[in-house]
Amino acid sequence: VSDLADLTAKYREFSKERDWEKFHDPRSLILALVGEVGELAELFQWEDPSVNESQISRTALQQRASEEVADIFLYLIRLADVLQIDLLQAASLKLTRAEERFPVSDFVGRAPTKR
Amino acid sequence: VSDLADLTAKYREFSKERDWEKFHDPRSLILALVGEVGELAELFQWEDPSVNESQISRTALQQRASEEVADIFLYLIRLADVLQIDLLQAASLKLTRAEERFPVSDFVGRAPTKR
Amino acid sequence: VSDLADLTAKYREFSKERDWEKFHDPRSLILALVGEVGELAELFQWEDPSVNESQISRTALQQRASEEVADIFLYLIRLADVLQIDLLQAASLKLTRAEERFPVSDFVGRAPTKR
Amino acid sequence: VSDLADLTAKYREFSKERDWEKFHDPRSLILALVGEVGELAELFQWEDPSVNESQISRTALQQRASEEVADIFLYLIRLADVLQIDLLQAASLKLTRAEERFPVSDFVGRAPTKR
Repeated sequence: VSDLADLTAKYREFSKERDWEKFHDPRSLILALVGEVGELAELFQWEDPSVNESQISRTALQQRASEEVADIFLYLIRLADVLQIDLLQAASLKLTRAEERFPVSDFVGRAPTKR
Repeated sequence: VSDLADLTAKYREFSKERDWEKFHDPRSLILALVGEVGELAELFQWEDPSVNESQISRTALQQRASEEVADIFLYLIRLADVLQIDLLQAASLKLTRAEERFPVSDFVGRAPTKR
Repeated sequence: VSDLADLTAKYREFSKERDWEKFHDPRSLILALVGEVGELAELFQWEDPSVNESQISRTALQQRASEEVADIFLYLIRLADVLQIDLLQAASLKLTRAEERFPVSDFVGRAPTKR
Repeated sequence: VSDLADLTAKYREFSKERDWEKFHDPRSLILALVGEVGELAELFQWEDPSVNESQISRTALQQRASEEVADIFLYLIRLADVLQIDLLQAASLKLTRAEERFPVSDFVGRAPTKR
């Protein structure tokens, strides 16, 4: 695929062909997304660099993480499509707002906690 | 921003300027992602169309969902950048594999459960 | 086990015997918890009663859900133990507060949304 | 409350009085649980001890974590009640199986990864 719009269209077509659109209501897609986030979390759960030599080689971990990140991305794309959200625009807007909320001068080296 | 690569670069620059790269290890970003997924789930938790008239107007819900989806997307972009994952390519590959695993003829109208 | 305190003690002993206490910092346990929540979500992701005859028999789903709920519970117990939280007391306090925040007269039949 | 059965009964009564049982289908409760897990994750997202002095004092973090852990516990109790799962028994069974799967002699000091 060449870009995000292309991937979105491809996934939409994929869903339509299989008559899976009926499963793709927001709640179902969010639950599916949570499932994939769980798989990603599982990969890193015991991988605390401060206490643990990696149980998985870096290459293997990167490869598996790539698959889970892709799965999350796909469900996110589908959810955005169903909810008629322009992912790129929405994220761009949020990043611009973060730049305003966290001025460099005030936040250098400080974690962006709201607390 | 014009595309995903552009947004990725912008977020990277944002992180660098604030010296936040040190916070952006995979585990921290996954926890942050989970936080945003939680906010998205919360929006839809009681919005079951089969039992509940919406507690939130459609427009308000769509707007809020847009913000949460954007937040998830941003952390996913950052995580992919840190792990050197090409999001578009990884997702495209996964979708192609899904097309093979779930042939139209076998899966029309059946939920894509592995069980 | 006879009660929650007993189960907590048993899991603590289990962790100590295997020298796994070093892995059980809060962040690692939260990531592990997220992994189990993901497995639970996956079980129900396409099980929307309004659009879908169950893909899994009720009995099988109940059995699998039981396992995932148990896994979540175990990590939650371990996390509470590590953070020195009295689970029963903390939850009891929260429920009491919910009774005050949501008086029966105001909330009958209305979803407890904050929005 | 004196024990888990007591808390379960109290929450059931709380839901019944408010006619909230209709909202407490498994999917809705899982989404609510995910929301609370997200809040817990958010508390710890930048709290990596290897790179970051705590942004939150230990006492404040412990207090907030206690609240989030309690919220997760409550939804888990409610979900188990709705699905007719005996939480203590299911978790006890899982822990016993973990003792068998991870013999002390083989797993001392090694993270319990399945990979």
